[in-house]
Amino acid sequence: MLNWYLETTNEDTVISTRIRIARNISGIPFINKMTQEDAYNVINTMKKAIQNIDYGLKILLLKDMDDITKLSLIEKHIISPEFALNKTNLGAIAINEEENICIMINEEDHLRIQTFSAGLNLENALYLATEIEKKLGENINYAYNEKYGFLTSCPSNVGTALRTSIMMHLPALTKTKNIGKVLNVLNSFEMNIRGVYGEGTSSKGNIYQISNKQTLGVTEEETIQNLKAIIDRLIEQEKLARKILTKKPIELEDEIYRAYGIFTNCRKISSDECTMLLSKIRLGVDLGIIKEITNAKVNKLEIYTKPANLQKQLGQVMDGYTRDIKRADIIKQIICE
Amino acid sequence: MLNWYLETTNEDTVISTRIRIARNISGIPFINKMTQEDAYNVINTMKKAIQNIDYGLKILLLKDMDDITKLSLIEKHIISPEFALNKTNLGAIAINEEENICIMINEEDHLRIQTFSAGLNLENALYLATEIEKKLGENINYAYNEKYGFLTSCPSNVGTALRTSIMMHLPALTKTKNIGKVLNVLNSFEMNIRGVYGEGTSSKGNIYQISNKQTLGVTEEETIQNLKAIIDRLIEQEKLARKILTKKPIELEDEIYRAYGIFTNCRKISSDECTMLLSKIRLGVDLGIIKEITNAKVNKLEIYTKPANLQKQLGQVMDGYTRDIKRADIIKQIICE
Repeated sequence: MLNWYLETTNEDTVISTRIRIARNISGIPFINKMTQEDAYNVINTMKKAIQNIDYGLKILLLKDMDDITKLSLIEKHIISPEFALNKTNLGAIAINEEENICIMINEEDHLRIQTFSAGLNLENALYLATEIEKKLGENINYAYNEKYGFLTSCPSNVGTALRTSIMMHLPALTKTKNIGKVLNVLNSFEMNIRGVYGEGTSSKGNIYQISNKQTLGVTEEETIQNLKAIIDRLIEQEKLARKILTKKPIELEDEIYRAYGIFTNCRKISSDECTMLLSKIRLGVDLGIIKEITNAKVNKLEIYTKPANLQKQLGQVMDGYTRDIKRADIIKQIICE
Repeated sequence: MLNWYLETTNEDTVISTRIRIARNISGIPFINKMTQEDAYNVINTMKKAIQNIDYGLKILLLKDMDDITKLSLIEKHIISPEFALNKTNLGAIAINEEENICIMINEEDHLRIQTFSAGLNLENALYLATEIEKKLGENINYAYNEKYGFLTSCPSNVGTALRTSIMMHLPALTKTKNIGKVLNVLNSFEMNIRGVYGEGTSSKGNIYQISNKQTLGVTEEETIQNLKAIIDRLIEQEKLARKILTKKPIELEDEIYRAYGIFTNCRKISSDECTMLLSKIRLGVDLGIIKEITNAKVNKLEIYTKPANLQKQLGQVMDGYTRDIKRADIIKQIICE
């Protein structure tokens, strides 16, 4: 069974799709008001509920997980940093082996049902999340208000309580200095956008997460449609920018292959440099310049070279210096697979 | 028949050995006083003289050679820039196919008999040069003075008129910042040292040329012995410095393999960058870190990537931009041979 993030996709620009539906259990106080007993109550309710649905979900308590495992899930964007690093230790996750389903329990809401998919896959991811929400709903009574819809801990999620996030790789828009303009337009469309690595909207790896703001007064389908329209425009803009770059083919190939040369030959490499080089390599693979590897391998390289996943993979805790060396080793290993 | 500069050597630090013996023909005015007729007289004398000796030498007149051919010989350090670029067009060379013998005719002296060898090969190179000098002397009457020895155009060469030059690669002494100290010591031993690429004693490719100053009051054998002693010390110092570098093996390997990665993957590369990367690669090959290529291949890469040799090799005159691209091509070609 392949992890979702290791799958090959046909879509160049979109790395992954995430759907997140927030739900709370009626009769149990919301997170900021709940006692330890309430928290266990939520976990136990979920333990029973997942027995009746068929997704191979297993409950793991955060307090039983070591830091590297938690950090490795953060690096894969499967759980939120705030949730994983919360000291109250009342959190849990329900996760399957492929890791394309992960329900965060006692995060900001009692339940945050998440589904993940490589590439652009909004409809399927939403279908799966909705299906899980419905099946769980047969055993769980969700907090719901006729006027507002589903109630959530934070008012910004009330209504559909649906957040859809798309991870996009936008190296050409960044390189041609058009990214700022494009991001401004997005903001006016009620979309959130942020760089995945680095502060604010800047992004070392040229990876950006685009998600909907609105949850109230729209349907799930409308949310998906709106986001899809925006993403399509972004793909179009990025492809236009890539066309501009390919007008200087030698310069582009040179930049990409120098990155590939360093990446595959270095003996030690930091996580930041790795992220930067992988962005160029990903662009090279997308454009058919680098034929040596597939985009699935780029995805694998991106995950396995992150600090916690690297340590998880090698089954040992390592200092930064050792990680930089082992990162170079694992790169060569994955490239040669 | 292999060109001398493409031969494999056992010596890490010494790239090549050159012997140069200056001679003038008795009865013909020295260069700065000679007429065009005198110059032709020298050339014709040599034409006859080489018929009686057996080294496969051919006379080529500078005025019949195109610029790229002349520049390619300069890049190989076979002829001097001043000689090649002289507009009076009275110069010629007598050269064999392996290019390990090249007599410059009408350079600063009537004859400058030069022999070349890969690696450290003083005795053999001197033996060959002396043999040629003797055989030519059977047909040519050299300008000679009982008191001073052989007479030369510039007083600094009078006596043996012997200049021996050793081309050394000293990356570790440079990197450990000991090169300045070492060069100062050399100066006090009456040796000339200069960086081969770049101004003064700095050297982009970490390649230095060491040659004797003294020609008066010493024998040829003493000159060789003195130089040999200095070179041995330099080799020793460089090897000590290399040992220091190998104390941080990961850092060293990382630096060397990053250079190798860029070198073998780039799509365009300047001559300067090429020189810098080749220095690191040469060190890597010397230390057994890079096993993919031999030092003979490094020598070949160094010669064939120089601007004029690149154009000579490809049989076309190219602008700088095109050369940078073709240089990257030829690197890949030679690496894969």
